[in-house]
Amino acid sequence: MNTPSPKAPVVKHAISPTRSENYAQWYQQVVKAADMAEMSGVRGCMIIKPWGYGAWELMQRNLDARFKETGHDNCYFPLFIPLSYFQKEADHVEGFAKEMAVVTHHRLTMKDGKLVPDGELEEPLVVRPTSETVIGEAMSTWIKSYRDLPLLLNQWANVVRWEMRPRILLRTAEFLWQEGHTAHETFEDAMAETRRMHEIYRQFVENIVAVPVIAGEKPSHERFPGAVNSYSIEAMMQDGRALQAGTSHYLGQNFAKSIGIQFQSREGNLEYVHTTSWGVSTRLLGALVMTHADDDGMRMPPRIAPQQIIIAPIFRNDTDRQVVLAYCEELRAGLAAQSYAGEPVRVRIDKRDISGADKRWEWIKKGVPLLLEVGPRDVEGGKVCVTRRDQLTAGKRFIQREEFIASAAGELAAIQKNLFDEALAFQKERTVTTIKTKADFDAYFAKDADNSFAGGQGFVRAKWSGDPASLALLDQYAVTVRCLPFDQDNQPGVCVLTGQPATQDALFARAY
Amino acid sequence: MNTPSPKAPVVKHAISPTRSENYAQWYQQVVKAADMAEMSGVRGCMIIKPWGYGAWELMQRNLDARFKETGHDNCYFPLFIPLSYFQKEADHVEGFAKEMAVVTHHRLTMKDGKLVPDGELEEPLVVRPTSETVIGEAMSTWIKSYRDLPLLLNQWANVVRWEMRPRILLRTAEFLWQEGHTAHETFEDAMAETRRMHEIYRQFVENIVAVPVIAGEKPSHERFPGAVNSYSIEAMMQDGRALQAGTSHYLGQNFAKSIGIQFQSREGNLEYVHTTSWGVSTRLLGALVMTHADDDGMRMPPRIAPQQIIIAPIFRNDTDRQVVLAYCEELRAGLAAQSYAGEPVRVRIDKRDISGADKRWEWIKKGVPLLLEVGPRDVEGGKVCVTRRDQLTAGKRFIQREEFIASAAGELAAIQKNLFDEALAFQKERTVTTIKTKADFDAYFAKDADNSFAGGQGFVRAKWSGDPASLALLDQYAVTVRCLPFDQDNQPGVCVLTGQPATQDALFARAY
Repeated sequence: MNTPSPKAPVVKHAISPTRSENYAQWYQQVVKAADMAEMSGVRGCMIIKPWGYGAWELMQRNLDARFKETGHDNCYFPLFIPLSYFQKEADHVEGFAKEMAVVTHHRLTMKDGKLVPDGELEEPLVVRPTSETVIGEAMSTWIKSYRDLPLLLNQWANVVRWEMRPRILLRTAEFLWQEGHTAHETFEDAMAETRRMHEIYRQFVENIVAVPVIAGEKPSHERFPGAVNSYSIEAMMQDGRALQAGTSHYLGQNFAKSIGIQFQSREGNLEYVHTTSWGVSTRLLGALVMTHADDDGMRMPPRIAPQQIIIAPIFRNDTDRQVVLAYCEELRAGLAAQSYAGEPVRVRIDKRDISGADKRWEWIKKGVPLLLEVGPRDVEGGKVCVTRRDQLTAGKRFIQREEFIASAAGELAAIQKNLFDEALAFQKERTVTTIKTKADFDAYFAKDADNSFAGGQGFVRAKWSGDPASLALLDQYAVTVRCLPFDQDNQPGVCVLTGQPATQDALFARAY
Repeated sequence: MNTPSPKAPVVKHAISPTRSENYAQWYQQVVKAADMAEMSGVRGCMIIKPWGYGAWELMQRNLDARFKETGHDNCYFPLFIPLSYFQKEADHVEGFAKEMAVVTHHRLTMKDGKLVPDGELEEPLVVRPTSETVIGEAMSTWIKSYRDLPLLLNQWANVVRWEMRPRILLRTAEFLWQEGHTAHETFEDAMAETRRMHEIYRQFVENIVAVPVIAGEKPSHERFPGAVNSYSIEAMMQDGRALQAGTSHYLGQNFAKSIGIQFQSREGNLEYVHTTSWGVSTRLLGALVMTHADDDGMRMPPRIAPQQIIIAPIFRNDTDRQVVLAYCEELRAGLAAQSYAGEPVRVRIDKRDISGADKRWEWIKKGVPLLLEVGPRDVEGGKVCVTRRDQLTAGKRFIQREEFIASAAGELAAIQKNLFDEALAFQKERTVTTIKTKADFDAYFAKDADNSFAGGQGFVRAKWSGDPASLALLDQYAVTVRCLPFDQDNQPGVCVLTGQPATQDALFARAY
């Protein structure tokens, strides 16, 4: 019954260059071919197109439910931050001052036929790069006593960081994100919150975005500006580089003290709150592409695919058209009545009047999990021609329509699992734990300084003393300490960089 | 059984001043007492707090489903617009240039211990006041042929218009909105889209936000800058003023020609597309307050109430506490299993350790549709004490718990209907159709030039010639032509302002 068609060109390397030819350009081409996003005419700023934005909306919906379940309320704070707010926390301003958009005027005036800025502001306004300062100011007036704590807030917003070398979805001047900001009575509460949200990110990114990650703490020199502890999840891209996919920070009483966020404690004393912040961004869309796409284009994990199934009717004349469309509509209705991951299956008929081959390859490049092609002969046989995007080389399968409808949710679950498993296998294969000396370390990273897909680059997990002097030794290969993974053996060993005694494992990699 | 308690203070005019004392201040106080929003330390910018943002999220969800049902895709365009884009459409720039935030620098530098803007941009960037220009630029590259049309886009975004006299939720420098932008082959298609979205707004605002509106076309001098036709829905606030609650514009080929958005037609000719744009904003939260709140605070329509039912347990000691909380939890679970308007009832227990009276009045001021108070005696009797916020004067009712659970969805539906009906009755009562002369018109609006709640101000519906010279006659009372309502009798008559012959009805009012 499910006989693959021998004639179909199952893969054709629709993306040029391929990953092994030029990984960086391959990435740009996939984003373009999948029609997820494009750079705009505005320097460093991108347009997120419907197929990319649809995936972001699904990520938002899933994360938002997790935030609400854990007691957080959404709210919205101003886009603009007065310079004076920003100046209060010295480390924070140091970390962000280099790359911010500054509003200095509030009007345009026509002068010699040209619009020019006019109405200079008394105090320039910074377009938020992150909102600790402006939310902290509000917290300082809202919080009076321990009864107001914990204060658990989140906002979905755009932020701007002036990037000198923008890269679509991964590093753009403007991006979308959520930023959680919370205030607590004690260190213990705040740290529990920091770790809780970090774990929510890990579960979300692995289970929904299907991207396996290494969870750990950032070394002190990689902390968020103003934080006491920073935690991240680190994903491995297909060129072996790391991508930080989410961060959660314990900010101690640093912001509370610089802004003045105080509360009356249970004992009646005036104390400073402990704050946290945590965020993920549209950068996850970049991680998605770099993790799952192949040389034929994007592969969308079903949980965040804007459409999980596309039905492509194929016909040569109007008689065909009517019969095929009616059959497809029954198929669509049957599938939409199925449920996957607690929601109705997202299925759409692509009725556009373009060739069957163009339609097929457009959806393969966009990475729809299941593509169903239906022509007059399929209608006669009561079948559908099924392509599973994650297993393109398996070719097309012809399946009885009702049988396919009944199995669709199961197929989607299998694709979701398979994409995660493939990525996890890749991550494990490219994580080296046997490097113990600086010479081996150098040999490993030197081998692939051209960053090509083909090379042996990946994660090195090894003992590290934490000595700041050791960091200079990493610069040669642009390698960084990504995190100190949570799962530690704590056995005594020798620092891979300095030869000093060391007990902690660090994760080393080049990173986006 | 449902005996009202005679001792309860049913209303107490919790908001000071009341509507009749000072309407403008009453409004500010309701927004504050309901904890929906507050002005921030950033000039003209507000913070939307969880109770206000929760209502906005529900509006978003409902509208977004309507947009998707009608074939629109969400996407995201840059926050910044280069000056050169803005300059292309003359009417458009004329309409917006006065009130925009302008980014001129991309860095801050420490100078004499003070942060100052640095890194001047070659071309200043405008923070979007609306996105016709930047989306039009993208459309000009995306659209090639009639096969690419219609292009139906929407984005949820923040926009900035520098307001000299900000008023919370109604007119702020930054606000949140959605903006739909579409491109079409023909005038007919584009006009159908313009009217379709206008009608979606009308249905949404009336059925979900429970605010009755008058739908009509804007007179030419009130059009959106660059539009050929603008349509609005006009709501009446409790001081008789109008508030524009949503607009939809047919932009003709104006933006297409200035930007160059062309397509190959079915006949093979190169033609300009016809575009539309339409939007509603967080201003709707202001309309919500000004329509439904009373002298005891906010009254949230159930469809957009972040919580539809609040359970307030009351106890004096730990034994009480345990028993009452267990009873409340059963109550909560029973209610959460009910469905209203196709969704589970939103219900929460307010477990905070504050007095029963404080808890009660906080929720009355926030306007939760149904407030349930439960003390030890209610537990003994198997009852709940119910307060319906829209009928505070009816007092408390004591209802058997299971009976209340079964009737809860019906009660919510009744509240939703009652709030709309009350507002509609008010709108009809304050709409005058008998004014035929300038003298009567003057007398009507002069009577209440202080804009107080008590006065006779409202909508005047009368014949209008449309003569631009007549507009000067409106200035004395700051009255404007709100719209030309769709339901016209087209009977010949006399212009209420000039005495000229006139067949069309116009809606006159002061407006927010």
